Amino acid sequence: MQEKRGRFITLEGGEGVGKSTNLNFVTQWFESRGIDFIQTREPGGTPLAEQLRELLLQKRDESVDPTAELLMVFAARAQHLNRVIRPALAAGQWVICDRFTDATYAYQGGGRGLDKSLIAQLEQTVQGDLRPDCVLLLDLDPEVGLQRAANTGEADRFESEQLAFFHKVREAYRARADADPARYAVIDASQGLAAVQDQLAAELDRLVVQP
Amino acid sequence: MQEKRGRFITLEGGEGVGKSTNLNFVTQWFESRGIDFIQTREPGGTPLAEQLRELLLQKRDESVDPTAELLMVFAARAQHLNRVIRPALAAGQWVICDRFTDATYAYQGGGRGLDKSLIAQLEQTVQGDLRPDCVLLLDLDPEVGLQRAANTGEADRFESEQLAFFHKVREAYRARADADPARYAVIDASQGLAAVQDQLAAELDRLVVQP
Repeated sequence: MQEKRGRFITLEGGEGVGKSTNLNFVTQWFESRGIDFIQTREPGGTPLAEQLRELLLQKRDESVDPTAELLMVFAARAQHLNRVIRPALAAGQWVICDRFTDATYAYQGGGRGLDKSLIAQLEQTVQGDLRPDCVLLLDLDPEVGLQRAANTGEADRFESEQLAFFHKVREAYRARADADPARYAVIDASQGLAAVQDQLAAELDRLVVQP
Repeated sequence: MQEKRGRFITLEGGEGVGKSTNLNFVTQWFESRGIDFIQTREPGGTPLAEQLRELLLQKRDESVDPTAELLMVFAARAQHLNRVIRPALAAGQWVICDRFTDATYAYQGGGRGLDKSLIAQLEQTVQGDLRPDCVLLLDLDPEVGLQRAANTGEADRFESEQLAFFHKVREAYRARADADPARYAVIDASQGLAAVQDQLAAELDRLVVQP
């Protein structure tokens, strides 16, 4: 019997799209089917990578250089990939990751305006050919998303950005999905939760039966 | 009158070469001549970059991926360069920096064995064409250096490496100096302190009178 590599699924989206709620739905879906998986997140997923996450999210007086921010994101990713994600996939586990490199294209590329070719170069350096098998993108008008997110505690350094930033984040996410539709599932997060989760379940059903 | 850009001087070397003592000598030399300078260090030099330094130096149970380490070093460098070093040079100040990118070639390239072309690519991304005007390299047999360093408190994550690591660090430093002798001053740190500092002073004299 041939060993099967696990599949790598990421959940993406801007502020207030309902990522936490729907991540719970996804992991419960895997649990209910008895599929062996790990749940993790970026930036983060290892003790060092979580420390880098904290430095990235902290609000600070010091203005953070966009390239420094980008390199911190990929430093955390290198650690996470080599210590957690690759070993899990190699062991046949599915990996469900809350944000990954699409978020870098969206936030650092779209939001901060960094050159996409620089992001692509770092992606190649850190990931080689590894890409998510499926990106579940929760898509929502940022005006609606920010209203939803306003009720959930103090804003971090990214959440404190202005509306124009989040419009660029959304557009960058959608452009990624448009460029490679086979690997992205764009889910309209303005729908009611039941409709969103029906669509998520349909995507997961499709993934699980794929050879 | 034409505005003069400050010059960028780095002090480099492995463990126990006497970097702190000689750094004091260099800064006192500049003070005594009334030359406007800043003293800084890598990794570090800004609050965020110092936080990254702490993450880099911490001894930890988690094995640190070499590429993650390299990206953290360059993240700190991007922040330091754009917030501290470039503004100082543009204002005409000299910059005296305790370690810089030569240390990356030595520790992450030589010591960890990372590909030099990857380091060069990140150097170009983060620094553009900026390179130190002069690298003062304190060179010493690591067996002697580690004996000297053994008396100075608990070892950090780098200081805890084995002798073979520090031999590779030294060789990488020396190879950098050999390849570009006009920009490097290799100082034999096995000499007595007076001889080392005579040589440092001669290098600084030469730099200050350069057009």
